Amino acid sequence: MIRVLRGHIVDAPRLGELQVTECGWLVLEDGVIRGVFDRLPAAYDNAPVTDYGDRLILPSFADMHLHAPQYPMLGMGMDLPLLDWLGTYAFPTEARFGDPDYARRTYRRLASDLITNGTTRVCMFSSLHTEATWILMEELERAGVTGYVGKVNMDRNGVPGLLQETAEQSAAETLRWLEGCRSDRVKPILTPRFTPSCSDELMARLGAIAAERGLYVQSHLSESLQEIEWVRNLHPDCERYWETYAKFGLWKDHTLMAHCVWSDTNERAAMRAAGVVAVHCADSNVNICSGVCPVRRLLDEGIWVTLGSDIAGGAQLPMYKVITAAIRASKIRRVIDDWTTDFLTVEEAFYLGTTAGHRYFGAGEGFAPGNRLHAIVVDDGDFPEAVGPLTVRERFQRAVYMLHRRNIVAVWSDGRCVVEKPLVPAEN
Amino acid sequence: MIRVLRGHIVDAPRLGELQVTECGWLVLEDGVIRGVFDRLPAAYDNAPVTDYGDRLILPSFADMHLHAPQYPMLGMGMDLPLLDWLGTYAFPTEARFGDPDYARRTYRRLASDLITNGTTRVCMFSSLHTEATWILMEELERAGVTGYVGKVNMDRNGVPGLLQETAEQSAAETLRWLEGCRSDRVKPILTPRFTPSCSDELMARLGAIAAERGLYVQSHLSESLQEIEWVRNLHPDCERYWETYAKFGLWKDHTLMAHCVWSDTNERAAMRAAGVVAVHCADSNVNICSGVCPVRRLLDEGIWVTLGSDIAGGAQLPMYKVITAAIRASKIRRVIDDWTTDFLTVEEAFYLGTTAGHRYFGAGEGFAPGNRLHAIVVDDGDFPEAVGPLTVRERFQRAVYMLHRRNIVAVWSDGRCVVEKPLVPAEN
Repeated sequence: MIRVLRGHIVDAPRLGELQVTECGWLVLEDGVIRGVFDRLPAAYDNAPVTDYGDRLILPSFADMHLHAPQYPMLGMGMDLPLLDWLGTYAFPTEARFGDPDYARRTYRRLASDLITNGTTRVCMFSSLHTEATWILMEELERAGVTGYVGKVNMDRNGVPGLLQETAEQSAAETLRWLEGCRSDRVKPILTPRFTPSCSDELMARLGAIAAERGLYVQSHLSESLQEIEWVRNLHPDCERYWETYAKFGLWKDHTLMAHCVWSDTNERAAMRAAGVVAVHCADSNVNICSGVCPVRRLLDEGIWVTLGSDIAGGAQLPMYKVITAAIRASKIRRVIDDWTTDFLTVEEAFYLGTTAGHRYFGAGEGFAPGNRLHAIVVDDGDFPEAVGPLTVRERFQRAVYMLHRRNIVAVWSDGRCVVEKPLVPAEN
Repeated sequence: MIRVLRGHIVDAPRLGELQVTECGWLVLEDGVIRGVFDRLPAAYDNAPVTDYGDRLILPSFADMHLHAPQYPMLGMGMDLPLLDWLGTYAFPTEARFGDPDYARRTYRRLASDLITNGTTRVCMFSSLHTEATWILMEELERAGVTGYVGKVNMDRNGVPGLLQETAEQSAAETLRWLEGCRSDRVKPILTPRFTPSCSDELMARLGAIAAERGLYVQSHLSESLQEIEWVRNLHPDCERYWETYAKFGLWKDHTLMAHCVWSDTNERAAMRAAGVVAVHCADSNVNICSGVCPVRRLLDEGIWVTLGSDIAGGAQLPMYKVITAAIRASKIRRVIDDWTTDFLTVEEAFYLGTTAGHRYFGAGEGFAPGNRLHAIVVDDGDFPEAVGPLTVRERFQRAVYMLHRRNIVAVWSDGRCVVEKPLVPAEN
């Protein structure tokens, strides 16, 4: 089935490159992009057209790191040091997801907040609860959010009896959970919380499961100096943090590592060599005083960098906020580096929050032919009146800074239109 | 006329101090606060009560530095260096305010966006246009925003013929403008743009006008290293930036200085000695790569610090966003300082964005008796469900991070209720 979308089409196929097709045509066949055109090819003359008029058609967002069960604590306890924050807020909150009804309510809300803010792909941590993790996957799928979700594994340094498993339980539950995952749109990913949470025995079992079933892996890496020190004490045999994953077969192609704020030259080389993907979580790094990730250096070295909201260390779910947080962090990095490093331009950061993430799921660059459509439609009609007519590129830049979900009037995910709303009046 | 407000009353009377009156009563007489009470004193038994139920009653915000005529360029040109940004965006945009119709439309929108976001007091730069400045003052007053507005003075380094005056014109227009200011709620403040924009002759004339009429002064100080260097070249006679204001009588009690990112010990001592007030504009400093202001040090040294959105160097008008931007900047400062300086807590930053600003206008601490009421009423009913009941203090903290204008259901300014709306449903 052919369908044609009309509007100002903007995407970021490569880092720093913006592709603008003013009053363009985007042709879909069964949800798959056939092409973006200045003029509609005659072959599609009779296809049904959805005319978005003067609005912008942009790629949707990919949030590559967030903790679903921390959503209820968004914006809370932000003055606490990391370990107190975990003890007072994060762990008690995650423990609550033993209750399937609470999980259902909370995850339905989270899924709705994601999709209406234009996030159509995620890589997400659940809690250690198998049932709640299935519920999370169901609710994402129902809302139209696609991607990977992981039941968390942790058998040490949690809350014994409340939020901790044995290595054996954790592995057995992981297998039971995997058996129950059946969706093509929301798939499982192995999720050892991070090295301090997982014994060698558990890591070894997870490494075996990953190899046997060809599963991807997500975890945390070199977020703060204290954490690195902790890992060093736990693993005197490993010179660097990344080796604690590598020795169990968890450091491999498509392994997602959140943060990488303090990864050194050796660790960064190991990432590149293995095909490990970094998830930069700028807001979280600032809120927790972890440090200021040298993203420009990671990019210059050829590391695959994506962005994550890292709810609830990050306090902002919408990826357009995460994108501007990444720009701001890179500008601060520039100041710290005595103005010798370049900040992320709007186009670059937008690429990281869209194409760089979508590629993790096998997509081609931007709105490349062959991609299933992941897009948002932006109505900027309620932004303040500019002094004169704006170019589409200027409107795009302004939208990245000023978007609110009321401006996202349609969302396409996996080739389907999953959010479609009438134009909200300017007042609000 | 007595009126009583009921709700959870929270204010920040002093730096780092939060005052919470759960299910409290706030008594007003002719718009002036008589007191905040746990139980309503019998004397007020028959007074009309506005019951805000489970909502939070907080102080409204004071935005102590923003450029009204830059509002149309919010979020635009953020990748440009400061001087290109001024040339490409800021100056052409400001020049547009020679058109009173455009000024009326834009300033009406700005005033509405300010008041519905809970900003009831401002110190604001207009452009150099006298008519547009009167229009701005009218529109603020009409919306319920109070404070100070300044016609900008600039007779050098602007855009000759488009956005620049002679010293004589500038002084004459300033006098004409002052004659036309009649409001008690929106008053004039002298506004030399900054030293590079104003010749000695103009500065001397403004200093004379300030002394003669007892007017306050606002300007910019030590925002970036290049700017400091520029000022040094323009004024070989002055060792430090602040002296270029002091020598013309513009450095005095209540002089507002935006930024102060790079003020050194000497300049900071001069601020304290003169009673000069610093306006910290965290988002703008980051966006323009100016630096990371050591706010904690300014506070520790006893300098009066307030907050400003600095539209459009800052890209966020709502002061709750400016408050969290200040928290984030202080956390980055902590990282830069090797974790030796403390960040701003939520309570501290909230104090800076409320009481510290309101005091500029003569108000007492927080909801002190004798203050005319400046307050917002917050409905947090659409925030994600927490794991259990929250304290009012937790709700306050979460609100600072998660507020959106839809959550601000009433705004009181100068003792009057200027925004009052029905509860918006949770979905949005």
